[in-house]
Amino acid sequence: MGSPSTARRMSARQRHSASSPRETRYDRRLAEILAHATDVFCKKGYEGASMRDLSRESGMSLAGLYYYFESKERLLYLIQKHTFGTIVERLKVRLEGVDDPEARVRIFILNHLEYFLANQAAMKVLSHEDEVLKNGFGAEVAAIKREYYRICVGLLDELKRDRSLQFTTRLAVLSLFGMMNWIYTWHKPRVDADAESIAQEMGDIFLRGVMASAKGKR
Amino acid sequence: MGSPSTARRMSARQRHSASSPRETRYDRRLAEILAHATDVFCKKGYEGASMRDLSRESGMSLAGLYYYFESKERLLYLIQKHTFGTIVERLKVRLEGVDDPEARVRIFILNHLEYFLANQAAMKVLSHEDEVLKNGFGAEVAAIKREYYRICVGLLDELKRDRSLQFTTRLAVLSLFGMMNWIYTWHKPRVDADAESIAQEMGDIFLRGVMASAKGKR
Repeated sequence: MGSPSTARRMSARQRHSASSPRETRYDRRLAEILAHATDVFCKKGYEGASMRDLSRESGMSLAGLYYYFESKERLLYLIQKHTFGTIVERLKVRLEGVDDPEARVRIFILNHLEYFLANQAAMKVLSHEDEVLKNGFGAEVAAIKREYYRICVGLLDELKRDRSLQFTTRLAVLSLFGMMNWIYTWHKPRVDADAESIAQEMGDIFLRGVMASAKGKR
Repeated sequence: MGSPSTARRMSARQRHSASSPRETRYDRRLAEILAHATDVFCKKGYEGASMRDLSRESGMSLAGLYYYFESKERLLYLIQKHTFGTIVERLKVRLEGVDDPEARVRIFILNHLEYFLANQAAMKVLSHEDEVLKNGFGAEVAAIKREYYRICVGLLDELKRDRSLQFTTRLAVLSLFGMMNWIYTWHKPRVDADAESIAQEMGDIFLRGVMASAKGKR
């Protein structure tokens, strides 16, 4: 581990933190490794998983894994960043051009549930290992999550203004997240409906619930 | 570790599995140890915590801890059994003599949130270490949880019949659990309301939501 190796490692890190969205081959390989790492964390828990397990599962040599990712913590950070980043990006695209406040909340719910059900292993890891990341890694992921949370607050505040509703936004937002996130504990593809139907029914319960708080209705 | 010790350990085990509800001194000591163990599991995670950590935190010797509890797994089992058993017991007492289906669901919500907010460390451990227990231990805890889940299904089915509502009971029950259980991730005593107010607001969202599904209303 002399200076050439350090220099190469630095450049790998810089390459990764560069914000070019066109590094498709690198991105594809990264996404594969992250998917394998997600499975391992899901099966063994973050604490219980070793870099050796991650190497075995991904087919990447242990040296290669350390070279590209440096640590288990960095892998968890990349999984979280990738997951939340993707959810937020898709949401923004879907919200474009939709004006009705109720429809916008419905889009939020569908977007969240679709991603969650398609990536259950990732969601379990994210829910369980929420507080593992420290310092810089943790702060960056926390910022993406905060943005996502604020989008939801904004959507509910729009609805509240538009329909003259009365509810505590923070409690409503966190109740909605709870309803949706808990799904990783119970959803069985053979028993339960798909994301679209669940988004419809959960959306009905949640939206009818908050919309029944119209001023004068109490 | 000769045969007398084994005999004593057997009798401790038998004493514990005996269903006498009056072993108050033993129960009190047990509750203390479980509270300490809960804190340790909450801080370090179940995998990360050692019997030595548990001994340090509880002030009980390592030998004593092994003598009474045999293993870390047994401690987790006792925490889960104690927690879910207590919630179910209190709920049954509170439901006695209450006939209105909506009021009964409100009692369920308040009972759940009150216990959750008063025992946040325990709830975090229970949510995270849900699948750790195997075989007999796991089966017994699963049976208590199933009973609790079925009580909630029963309450919602009563409401559905009584008000001619249309919703998928399983989805409604699991949405409600999600709203309530997620609270361990966000509730801050200095920022958020107490259990009673939260139960009122969550109850409003959930109940108005499901009650808006009355037949003919769609």
